[in-house]
Amino acid sequence: MTDYDYGDAGQMLDVGRAILAEQPFNGLIGAELVGFAPGEAELRLPVREELRQQFGLTHGGVVSYLADNTLTFAGGSVLGPTVLTAEYKLSFVRPAIGDDLVARASVVHAGRRQAVCRCDVFDVTDGQESLCATALGTIRALQDPSADTET
Amino acid sequence: MTDYDYGDAGQMLDVGRAILAEQPFNGLIGAELVGFAPGEAELRLPVREELRQQFGLTHGGVVSYLADNTLTFAGGSVLGPTVLTAEYKLSFVRPAIGDDLVARASVVHAGRRQAVCRCDVFDVTDGQESLCATALGTIRALQDPSADTET
Amino acid sequence: MTDYDYGDAGQMLDVGRAILAEQPFNGLIGAELVGFAPGEAELRLPVREELRQQFGLTHGGVVSYLADNTLTFAGGSVLGPTVLTAEYKLSFVRPAIGDDLVARASVVHAGRRQAVCRCDVFDVTDGQESLCATALGTIRALQDPSADTET
Amino acid sequence: MTDYDYGDAGQMLDVGRAILAEQPFNGLIGAELVGFAPGEAELRLPVREELRQQFGLTHGGVVSYLADNTLTFAGGSVLGPTVLTAEYKLSFVRPAIGDDLVARASVVHAGRRQAVCRCDVFDVTDGQESLCATALGTIRALQDPSADTET
Repeated sequence: MTDYDYGDAGQMLDVGRAILAEQPFNGLIGAELVGFAPGEAELRLPVREELRQQFGLTHGGVVSYLADNTLTFAGGSVLGPTVLTAEYKLSFVRPAIGDDLVARASVVHAGRRQAVCRCDVFDVTDGQESLCATALGTIRALQDPSADTET
Repeated sequence: MTDYDYGDAGQMLDVGRAILAEQPFNGLIGAELVGFAPGEAELRLPVREELRQQFGLTHGGVVSYLADNTLTFAGGSVLGPTVLTAEYKLSFVRPAIGDDLVARASVVHAGRRQAVCRCDVFDVTDGQESLCATALGTIRALQDPSADTET
Repeated sequence: MTDYDYGDAGQMLDVGRAILAEQPFNGLIGAELVGFAPGEAELRLPVREELRQQFGLTHGGVVSYLADNTLTFAGGSVLGPTVLTAEYKLSFVRPAIGDDLVARASVVHAGRRQAVCRCDVFDVTDGQESLCATALGTIRALQDPSADTET
Repeated sequence: MTDYDYGDAGQMLDVGRAILAEQPFNGLIGAELVGFAPGEAELRLPVREELRQQFGLTHGGVVSYLADNTLTFAGGSVLGPTVLTAEYKLSFVRPAIGDDLVARASVVHAGRRQAVCRCDVFDVTDGQESLCATALGTIRALQDPSADTET
């Protein structure tokens, strides 16, 4: 599925974690990359009080962030590290109320420059996962990440 | 368009700002509600370093947060304050590189319990706005915000 | 997952086929319901010349029709027969060039009045299936199908 | 906005109509291109009985077809005639019950190879238009339309 060579499984996860560590916004949110393999990515996020909304639920923007970023990592797993999310659709199916979120994304189809990926986000309470959102999006490889996304 | 009565224009904006102030996650992000009227909402966000990704651009998750929350406020402007985003689709059209983001959402159609809304997100550099993302989503009124979103 | 009782497996498929037969538009397109079970639906469509576009590919509108209708049947499998698609997103991943399309949809999450469903559409050439599109959407149960969809 | 030269306004509409006439599927559906200008397209469709579903409404697949095709024409108005819809999201906001559908699409942002477009679909009854659906999608220019859409 991929032409991009991240090295072996351990090297690939290390590269992925280094990319995530370079994102200042993730420093604010606090997600961890727990899986990164060709065609797949998994992020986990401890949900502290600051990530909630006014009803005590995990904020939809946090679920969005996690879905978006996990989609991007899944696409990047086959397209290489210089990728951006071009577009995605997110459906919330249950309020997220637990202590952790886990997002798992996989590549549905990849071409040379784009990948269509899907992502399920799970709310974790007492170790039990329940699906809280699902997403479908397009990830695009960039020649120059500071250039226009619509090349 | 709306049955919900927020009071006059000044009162409505005050209520909207109070709702935003109750969202711990927005305390972390720092958006301000600058417009809230029947069928419309506008959020503005100063983009500090912590909200960027590894290429120096505003993180897509931040753009997502702003689009999602502005859609929710637009829906809430007609459905009342107890609303959640059920689903949305976001297309990124230009990288956001500026100092501020402004998101403007409006209601396309509202029923009693749901509203379809759209949102444009603009990147602001030296006072010049350029569209960086556009979204389309569904906002749902909840009887009980801690209950299942799929009622 | 469902409160709606269609009877046993054979009865359920018969009811589904009767519903499809009542759709004049499907008479024009010619899809067949080949699977209909709680949480799942499958439609198959022979692609004749009239269903193609100017490059000889199956028209995107035909793929859309099939995805949309299969999503609706999947939602209807748990919500009952009086349902409509509220919204969906469709990503085309490969041109459809073959002699048949097969669409398989399943329920991701169902509440009492709405279901989030996904659907994969496959192009079939010489008996070989390849994914040509994937969709994610929301199906809504209606009290009165001639009333406003946004109730 | 566009590098592609269709000639003057009358020539451009003629080219667009010729493209639509080459789509066998449109021969079955019967839409007419009534507007085609840089960044914009409009299709009109008389809704005969065959285009309805079992409740007497215009079939969602017909609305989808019209939205999808009008998005493609809008994208093609700036990218040139060799384009395909890569993905789109459609929200139905009212049942379509009238005698005609009108779809108007415009380009939100165009790069060299892709355009993000939106489309509103109106139900027309006794000359009165009411919005029945709205869409947001991505149109992609192809070098070779028979090649993989994910290039």
